[in-house]
Amino acid sequence: MELIPASPSGAMALADELTAAMAAIHARGWCDGTGGNFSCVQQRDPLLLLMAPSGVDKGQVQPGDLIVVDAAGQVIAGGGKASAETALHLEIVSRCDAGAVLHTHSQAATLLSRRALADPRPGQDSAPKSDGVVRVEGLEMLKGLDGISTHATAIEIPVLANDQNLPRLSQRAGPLLGDAPQGLLIAGHGLYAWGPSLSQAIRHLEILEFLLEQSWRQLLLEALLTRPASGQVISHG
Amino acid sequence: MELIPASPSGAMALADELTAAMAAIHARGWCDGTGGNFSCVQQRDPLLLLMAPSGVDKGQVQPGDLIVVDAAGQVIAGGGKASAETALHLEIVSRCDAGAVLHTHSQAATLLSRRALADPRPGQDSAPKSDGVVRVEGLEMLKGLDGISTHATAIEIPVLANDQNLPRLSQRAGPLLGDAPQGLLIAGHGLYAWGPSLSQAIRHLEILEFLLEQSWRQLLLEALLTRPASGQVISHG
Amino acid sequence: MELIPASPSGAMALADELTAAMAAIHARGWCDGTGGNFSCVQQRDPLLLLMAPSGVDKGQVQPGDLIVVDAAGQVIAGGGKASAETALHLEIVSRCDAGAVLHTHSQAATLLSRRALADPRPGQDSAPKSDGVVRVEGLEMLKGLDGISTHATAIEIPVLANDQNLPRLSQRAGPLLGDAPQGLLIAGHGLYAWGPSLSQAIRHLEILEFLLEQSWRQLLLEALLTRPASGQVISHG
Amino acid sequence: MELIPASPSGAMALADELTAAMAAIHARGWCDGTGGNFSCVQQRDPLLLLMAPSGVDKGQVQPGDLIVVDAAGQVIAGGGKASAETALHLEIVSRCDAGAVLHTHSQAATLLSRRALADPRPGQDSAPKSDGVVRVEGLEMLKGLDGISTHATAIEIPVLANDQNLPRLSQRAGPLLGDAPQGLLIAGHGLYAWGPSLSQAIRHLEILEFLLEQSWRQLLLEALLTRPASGQVISHG
Repeated sequence: MELIPASPSGAMALADELTAAMAAIHARGWCDGTGGNFSCVQQRDPLLLLMAPSGVDKGQVQPGDLIVVDAAGQVIAGGGKASAETALHLEIVSRCDAGAVLHTHSQAATLLSRRALADPRPGQDSAPKSDGVVRVEGLEMLKGLDGISTHATAIEIPVLANDQNLPRLSQRAGPLLGDAPQGLLIAGHGLYAWGPSLSQAIRHLEILEFLLEQSWRQLLLEALLTRPASGQVISHG
Repeated sequence: MELIPASPSGAMALADELTAAMAAIHARGWCDGTGGNFSCVQQRDPLLLLMAPSGVDKGQVQPGDLIVVDAAGQVIAGGGKASAETALHLEIVSRCDAGAVLHTHSQAATLLSRRALADPRPGQDSAPKSDGVVRVEGLEMLKGLDGISTHATAIEIPVLANDQNLPRLSQRAGPLLGDAPQGLLIAGHGLYAWGPSLSQAIRHLEILEFLLEQSWRQLLLEALLTRPASGQVISHG
Repeated sequence: MELIPASPSGAMALADELTAAMAAIHARGWCDGTGGNFSCVQQRDPLLLLMAPSGVDKGQVQPGDLIVVDAAGQVIAGGGKASAETALHLEIVSRCDAGAVLHTHSQAATLLSRRALADPRPGQDSAPKSDGVVRVEGLEMLKGLDGISTHATAIEIPVLANDQNLPRLSQRAGPLLGDAPQGLLIAGHGLYAWGPSLSQAIRHLEILEFLLEQSWRQLLLEALLTRPASGQVISHG
Repeated sequence: MELIPASPSGAMALADELTAAMAAIHARGWCDGTGGNFSCVQQRDPLLLLMAPSGVDKGQVQPGDLIVVDAAGQVIAGGGKASAETALHLEIVSRCDAGAVLHTHSQAATLLSRRALADPRPGQDSAPKSDGVVRVEGLEMLKGLDGISTHATAIEIPVLANDQNLPRLSQRAGPLLGDAPQGLLIAGHGLYAWGPSLSQAIRHLEILEFLLEQSWRQLLLEALLTRPASGQVISHG
C-alpha cells in the first residue's frame, strides 16, 4: 500500500499545510461564504483524499475538522459531509495524477468563465469539446505552469457549463483534463486548479487566478481602446 | 424564558464571536469610518439584542464595549447609544426570525443600490413594492443563500430609497423582508444581511457582497462589449 | 499652559496611537513609498505637533521615531527632518482647531483631484476660490463627517493645484479650510483630512477615501451607461 | 575587500530584511506563483548577491533559504538554483551601483508594459532604444524617486520586449539603465526596481507600482471620457 505521506506525522503535516492553504486562499477573497473546496491525496492506493467538509467557512477550518474520503466519495474518517463536488476532485486526481486539487470562486474566474460560453470554440470532430475557453497568451506568468518554459505560447483553459449533476459534470470534464493547463473553469462558478503536490497546486492556482484577473483588465482596456474614435465614426458619405 | 445562549459563558462566547466578525468585516473595507452596524440575538423572549454602540470604529470594538438593547430599542446594558438603525435590525429579527443582522457599507452595495433606483421594478398591484431591485442570476454562489440549491435561478435583492426616518424606513422594509434573499439594500447606503445564526449571517453577507461586486464587474463588461462595433456604426447609406 | 495630553503617559499613548494609525493607513496602500504625513496636536498653547519625520516609510515608524515641531515648523524634539508639508499641517491645525491632520496619497484621491482641475468651479466674486472641486452627494457615508446628519446633502471637497512652494500653497489653502468638509485635495497629489482628535480625523479620512473611491466607480459607470446606444447611433438617413 | 555589511550580524540582518521585504511584496500580490525575484548586494568587491533561489514561493522564504551568487551568476553558498534572471540583476547592480534589485509581476506592470509595445517611442539615432515606454507626468508621487524634487516633471520607464534569452535581454537592457527612473519594464512580464540600499529599492518599487496602477486608472478614465458624445456621433449628412 503506497502511502502519501508515509507516516502519521506526515499526515499531520499535510493537514496543517492544507488548512494553512485554505486560510490564505480565503484571505484573498477566493472562497467567500463557505464556497470552494480543497483536497490533498493522503494515500494513493487505495485512494484516500484529505479534504474540507461541505458547508463550512474555509478560512476557519482546523486540521481536526478535515475529513477523509475514499475513491467512491464516501467519508471514511472525520465528522462532516463530503461536498457533491468531491466527484470532480476524484476525477482530476485520477486523470491527472494530481496530489492536490484547489477549487475557488474568484471574481475574475466567475466572470470570464461565464462570458466564455457566449463565444464557444468548437473542438475538432474527433476531439472532446468544452463549452468555451479562456485563452491567455504571451505572458511571462504562463511559465508558472508545469511544462511551460517561455512566454511565447498560449493556453486555453477549458470552460464547461455549470451543472448541479456532479457525476455528469465530472464525466464531461474527464476527457478535457489531459490537455488542460492545470486548470478547468466551470461557467459562472469558478476554477479548479491542481498539481502533483499541494505546493505545486497552490502555484498553479495563483498563476491561473493572476492570468484571469489580467485577462479581465485586458478585456476592459481593449474594449475601450478599440472603440471607434470620433473622427472615424462620423466619416462616411 | 428562552435564552440564546443559555449561559453566561455562552453570552461571552457570543460577544467574542460578534467582535471578531466586526473586525474581519472592517478589515475588508465594508464598514469604514464608524459606518455599519452588527447585532446578534442574545435572548429571544423577551427579545434582547447584543450589538455595537453607535459612532464607534467597528474594527476596534471589544466585547466589553457591546450594548444590550430590548425590543423597543432601549439600551438596557452597556455604555453607549444605540444607533437609530436599531429599528431596522429589530424589524428584521422579528420578521425573519433572524439570529444575527449585519449591516455594511461596501463600494459595490453603495453604487448598485443607488443605480437600481433609476430603473424601478413595479410589484404586482397587490404586492409590496420596493423602489428598485438588484437582480442576480445564473451564478453558483447563489447556492450560498439558504434555500437555494442550484445556480439556475435568480434573486432580486429589494432596494429602498434611503430615509433618515428609521421607523418609517423599517415600516416600508417590513413587508419586503419575507421574500428577500437574506438581504436588503438601502440606496446609496449599503446592505443588510441576516441569518438564523451569526455564522449563517456571515455566510449570507459574504455571498451577497460577492454577488454585488460581481454585478458591478458584469455591468462594466456588458456596457463595454455591447457598444456598437466600428463597422456597424459606419454602415449606412 | 494648556496641555494635550496633560501627562507624560498621555504623550506616550498619543505616540502609540499615531504610529498604529500610520501602520494601518500604510497597510491600505494610502501612503506608499514614504509618501504622506501624519500629525497630532501634543500641546495647544504654545502649539506642539507630534509627527512623523520626512522621508521614512510610514508603515514602519516606531513611537520613538516621532518628532515634535513647534508653530514655526521647527523640530524641537526627536531626530529627523520635518517635511516641507508641515506648513500645511500647521495651517489646518490653526484654522480648523484640528487635533490631528492625516495626509494620504491614495489612487482615487490622486486621480480625481487631478481630473477636477480640468473642470474648475468658480467661486462667487467675493469668495475664496479653489482650482476645482470634487462633489459628492446623496450618500449615507456623508454622515460620517462632523456636522452632517442626512444623506440628502452634498459636499464639495476643494482642490488646489499642486505647488512645491508650501508656504504659498498653505496661504492659498487657508481661506478655503473653514468651509471645507474636513478635507482638502491637492491635485495629482492626495488628500488632507482632519478632525478635533486623532480618532475623529481617522474617521474623516476613512469616509473621504471611501467617497473618493465611490466617485471613481460612479464616474466609470456613468460614462459607460450614458454612451449612445447602438440603435441611436445608426439611426439616420 | 569592501564588505556590505561588514559583519556576520550585518549579513544576518540583511537576510532578515530581505525575507521580510519578500513576504510584504507577496502579500500585495506582486509575486504570485513563485514569480518575481529579489536580491541585495552582500559584498561589493568581489561582488556577492544575496537572493532568493529560483522556483520558490517568495512569500515563504526564510533567511536560511537564501543563496549567495557571485558576479558570474554562480551559486557559491546556500542550497538552490539561481534564477536565469540573475543576469539582469547583476547588470543592474553593475550599471546603476544598486544595493538591491526587486523584480515583481503585478497586474498593472504586466498590462501596461505589454500595451507600451504597441506604441513604441523611437530614440534618437544615436541613443539606445527601448521597445516602448510608460510615461508618467505631473504627479506628486514622482518625488519618491531619487533625484526628483517636483511633481512638475515626467519620467519614461523603458520597456523591453520579453526574451527568454537572459544574457541577450540583459545586454539590451544595459545601455538603457543609466537614464532609467530606477525602474525597467519587461513587456507582459513585470517591473525591475532598484536603489542604493534595500530600503531605497523598496521605496522605488512602491512608487513605481503606485504610478503604474494610477496610469491604468487614468487610461480607463481618459478613454471613457474622451469618447464621442451622442450628438457628435450622429451628426453627419
